[in-house]
Amino acid sequence: MALVSPWMNGKFLPQKKIVEALETLLVPGDRVVIESVQKQADFLSRSLAKVNPKKIHDLKAVIWAIARPDHMEIFEQGIASEVDFSFAGPQSLRLAQMLEDGQIKVNSINTYVELSARMFVDLIPNAVLVCADMADREGNLYTGANTEDTPSMVEAAAFRDGIVIVQVNQIVDKLPRVDIPGGWIDVIVEGDRPYAKEPIQTRDPKDIKELQILTAMMVIRGVYERHQVTSLNHGVGFDTAAIELLLPTYGGKLGLKGKICRNWILNPQPTLIPAIESGWVESVHSFGNEDGMEKYVAARPDIYFTGPDGSLRSNRVFCQLAGHYAVDLFAGSTLQIDAEGNSSTVTKGRIAGFGGAPNLGSDARGRRHPSAAWLSLITSDDAIVRGRKLCVQVVETFKAGGVPLFVETLDAVQVGKDAKLPIAPVMIYGDDVSHVATEEGIAYLYKADGMEERRAAVAAIAGVTKVGLKSTAKQVKALREKGVVAYPEDLGVRRSDANRSLLSARSMKDLVTWSGGLYEPPARFRSW
Amino acid sequence: MALVSPWMNGKFLPQKKIVEALETLLVPGDRVVIESVQKQADFLSRSLAKVNPKKIHDLKAVIWAIARPDHMEIFEQGIASEVDFSFAGPQSLRLAQMLEDGQIKVNSINTYVELSARMFVDLIPNAVLVCADMADREGNLYTGANTEDTPSMVEAAAFRDGIVIVQVNQIVDKLPRVDIPGGWIDVIVEGDRPYAKEPIQTRDPKDIKELQILTAMMVIRGVYERHQVTSLNHGVGFDTAAIELLLPTYGGKLGLKGKICRNWILNPQPTLIPAIESGWVESVHSFGNEDGMEKYVAARPDIYFTGPDGSLRSNRVFCQLAGHYAVDLFAGSTLQIDAEGNSSTVTKGRIAGFGGAPNLGSDARGRRHPSAAWLSLITSDDAIVRGRKLCVQVVETFKAGGVPLFVETLDAVQVGKDAKLPIAPVMIYGDDVSHVATEEGIAYLYKADGMEERRAAVAAIAGVTKVGLKSTAKQVKALREKGVVAYPEDLGVRRSDANRSLLSARSMKDLVTWSGGLYEPPARFRSW
Repeated sequence: MALVSPWMNGKFLPQKKIVEALETLLVPGDRVVIESVQKQADFLSRSLAKVNPKKIHDLKAVIWAIARPDHMEIFEQGIASEVDFSFAGPQSLRLAQMLEDGQIKVNSINTYVELSARMFVDLIPNAVLVCADMADREGNLYTGANTEDTPSMVEAAAFRDGIVIVQVNQIVDKLPRVDIPGGWIDVIVEGDRPYAKEPIQTRDPKDIKELQILTAMMVIRGVYERHQVTSLNHGVGFDTAAIELLLPTYGGKLGLKGKICRNWILNPQPTLIPAIESGWVESVHSFGNEDGMEKYVAARPDIYFTGPDGSLRSNRVFCQLAGHYAVDLFAGSTLQIDAEGNSSTVTKGRIAGFGGAPNLGSDARGRRHPSAAWLSLITSDDAIVRGRKLCVQVVETFKAGGVPLFVETLDAVQVGKDAKLPIAPVMIYGDDVSHVATEEGIAYLYKADGMEERRAAVAAIAGVTKVGLKSTAKQVKALREKGVVAYPEDLGVRRSDANRSLLSARSMKDLVTWSGGLYEPPARFRSW
Repeated sequence: MALVSPWMNGKFLPQKKIVEALETLLVPGDRVVIESVQKQADFLSRSLAKVNPKKIHDLKAVIWAIARPDHMEIFEQGIASEVDFSFAGPQSLRLAQMLEDGQIKVNSINTYVELSARMFVDLIPNAVLVCADMADREGNLYTGANTEDTPSMVEAAAFRDGIVIVQVNQIVDKLPRVDIPGGWIDVIVEGDRPYAKEPIQTRDPKDIKELQILTAMMVIRGVYERHQVTSLNHGVGFDTAAIELLLPTYGGKLGLKGKICRNWILNPQPTLIPAIESGWVESVHSFGNEDGMEKYVAARPDIYFTGPDGSLRSNRVFCQLAGHYAVDLFAGSTLQIDAEGNSSTVTKGRIAGFGGAPNLGSDARGRRHPSAAWLSLITSDDAIVRGRKLCVQVVETFKAGGVPLFVETLDAVQVGKDAKLPIAPVMIYGDDVSHVATEEGIAYLYKADGMEERRAAVAAIAGVTKVGLKSTAKQVKALREKGVVAYPEDLGVRRSDANRSLLSARSMKDLVTWSGGLYEPPARFRSW
């Protein structure tokens, strides 16, 4: 820090000095955390990509989401040589290619909160590059609606002699609120433009199909109602958005309001607005923000976690923790499920990573508090038993383009071998999945007796995929009688009722109306 | 808040007004978090016990550790009527009695971090009563070495319109550092004396017995060395303290320095000082503080997480998270193990709760990063496999007074029935336990094929307890040949070497010497 102090005014560094400052503050081999999930410290990562690789090389990078081209440039130039990461959606092809070319060493693929945990054990950072909305003159930070991982990243470095470098959108005299104390921060620099961010969980209701509505109806009846699910998390996707939009209509008709789906962990997804406005929801805690939801969130502090300034306080670590230990159910989608119920979003030539799913979608074996839903998965009458989290995969048997979702073997097995990973990169293991729901029906995997019955249950709802075609009428009959598989008619769901008219909102405009005009969809979602 | 504002000077309330303020700020039925694990907001809990039960009654209490008589008074007077808690060590007998008398309703027994998670979902607090070392005039808080759970408790209330009430030891002009921003706090009151605290993990080496040394030697050879354990957590107790004290001596002779036990999560336990001073340890992240370790910690910021003021930054949530997701091994002791490897500290007439053990001692099924230790527990050669956390129970076959540790059925089963709990209060389930170590040998439960072999493996190391006497010589021979059980001679450990002279410190005074005079044991540990 002494070497850069001539350039600094207190904690503040002039923008044009950032590359030189990084060259001075880092040394080869340092472990550097680069903030990036929904919000991205992109001024800092673009600046890091400009340092002289002769001076700074072989950094060990820790990146929650490898989302930006400049992240890849850092490796291509040898500025960093190895990485521990969690998600690589937009860069998953390039990452696989660079791995094959030996330009990068992947130490591990993690779930988000695993990286948070490891910052205090074996991935202690020498420096963290993070971002915030504003700083005041004392260096206190306002992270507002997009707080996400910034507090935990800063804590890991600030209290272990690491260097905390923050890009801010603005330096102001008075912050709307203090999210991170100035004493934890070493260097503040104004970015050349506001930090980049992504509304990753927002889905447009217009793209929800009737098969997804059919499946959502079955999930509401056959899982949420049957197991009395009051606290839950929904993954990203149209399949679960359909469930959210059916609660006020279909769920209301079933008399389930107040009985299910009360406490959520979820970003402020606009598709939950109709359920909130219809009085279904008691609380929502969020990983991060969704752009355009600011005014609506500020109007509902009785539902969302907000500060005295009215803006959301998101916190990915606490929300992931709540998703693991506090909620009864995780429902999410995936790209492939194998015959035994294992699933992954890793497909050929892509190393996409996992995001939050392994944490959210795995049973919390340390959980000890009971709830009706958790207890309902006990299938033994032994003296020593434990409940289980409901982990529900909600999918269609075929993806867009007629690609089967059910496969005999996950692509992840071959991808893992090609990338020389010690084990195949599985996102959610079959033994953690309690239910699989498709447009064909629901497989109650937690009831299946042994692997053979589990395979038969998966096949029974896998439609006309190769996996599904192995199912026989006799098997299906036995499984339905035993309650291991349920088809729409077993659940009192009529296929012909599965209509888009059941959706409480059928467009972004409908969501805006539900919000009383407070939701302001990002430009890409505005078609009117 | 408007109702108490006439009494207040900014955020500051006069000490003598606290009971009235609580009567004004709370309403019957409110959910109230009372801080108490190692540090206890005792001025506030004593004050809460003094409110008029006609005004304030039927509160829903959330208490990490029911540790104080005033906690119980709150229930006896009907001020609170139900509780979600984690640990009740000192009050476990009284709690069981009150439950029987219908004076309290226990909603759930949790592991610590489960309560943290639930504060954001189904246990959102209306008020939190917490404590801090100091506040400045703006209401910023210094929690110093005993930060523990204060930030997460405050966050859950501050951002959901809950009321945050803090007792502080001192109000000062300038804090050594800011741990919690003043904007998150509603009411600050100076306590009538410094908040109560407990050095719960400190153990005196003089009380370590030779049987514990023998077991510790076996664990070092048969678990830590064999599985290449580099990151770990030790529970509270003499069994694991023995391991810590053997590292510089026995571990050094085996050439293991730098190869095992590098990254720890652990309070600043004095018994780790010899290993730190001998260069074994790279890092320690802590749940809370241990009294008397302040100067030593300040001298080793290269090992501990400390602030710029030199004092520890503990954080129970992050440390528990690290214990779940980041470390390879948990080793701890317990009071009872049944024939199948289930264990509990709940014994007849006592509802002791769980503390951190269920989280720390359960497999992290969401973990995806590999390590040599984690991978070494894979026993299948299927294409889809996962590693496992090492969960090691280190015990003696008989407890003090000749009470067997191994029992056919846990007392917890009957206690659970008597208390009408929906399931028996098991601390660590047998299917999460990978190893059980006693003075007889080590059972490698993760290798056992089915329940019958697991029972045989437990019996083989259960000595002359009733459980152990079921073991036959033929069974033991087969298990040893298969590597499911190892006796000292199988591990190259000589029983005759297990001597107190092997301990790198044999007294508190030795620990003070190792620390260069920096460790200052609390009075109760000072016998010289």
